[in-house]
Amino acid sequence: MLIEKFTEEEVKALGRHIIVEAFDCDDSTLNNTQLLRLMLLDAVKEANMTVCGDIFHEFSPHGVTGVVVVKESHISIHTWPEYGYASIDIFTCGNYSNPWKAYQYIIDTLKPKRIQVIELKRGMLKPRG
Amino acid sequence: MLIEKFTEEEVKALGRHIIVEAFDCDDSTLNNTQLLRLMLLDAVKEANMTVCGDIFHEFSPHGVTGVVVVKESHISIHTWPEYGYASIDIFTCGNYSNPWKAYQYIIDTLKPKRIQVIELKRGMLKPRG
Repeated sequence: MLIEKFTEEEVKALGRHIIVEAFDCDDSTLNNTQLLRLMLLDAVKEANMTVCGDIFHEFSPHGVTGVVVVKESHISIHTWPEYGYASIDIFTCGNYSNPWKAYQYIIDTLKPKRIQVIELKRGMLKPRG
Repeated sequence: MLIEKFTEEEVKALGRHIIVEAFDCDDSTLNNTQLLRLMLLDAVKEANMTVCGDIFHEFSPHGVTGVVVVKESHISIHTWPEYGYASIDIFTCGNYSNPWKAYQYIIDTLKPKRIQVIELKRGMLKPRG
């Protein structure tokens, strides 16, 4: 049996992915497409990311989906105002952008009363032998 | 202390999020923006999702970022051809789309030699008392 064992420091991660579950947000905020779009575009600036483009879609009777594609990957939001819930993903790569700054900006705007958040490392590469 | 305990059946999840780490893919496939765009658009059809729009960006000297925004949420891909790696996210909501069909279509196209995949439930709502 071959066992390969590495410390986190030895393994290179290409990307960082922050996964946010935002509960008990204000429902009118979660239904305001223009506000959510500006929020994500501002969050991208806070995190030092560069915008490639964005797509937002407003649902009837409620809910918004939006993605901002950045050179460093993407930020997305999907909202369910009827449940006060938003799911947010902040995916960055490179050393120049800080996804947690985008996270903080979004949380300060949405003001959820309950949050679950995890950071996943994406693209964990083993050291070359 | 208040302990709230629910079975998975009692908790409603608004979304399903499949997170894919695809290693050891063919590097020319990972650098082919047109092929990757058609792959995601076809994967969306396979999964019974409806496209709102898409954004793709090709990096120099290599790498592609692409997101297809669908009514049911989004699919994204970020590739690092120099490492043979692609990170893929398939996020769906509703009962009519099957994210695993999109996953299978993408894997059949990229043919990674090594895969890590997890499904996260997004927007887990407690039953109303």
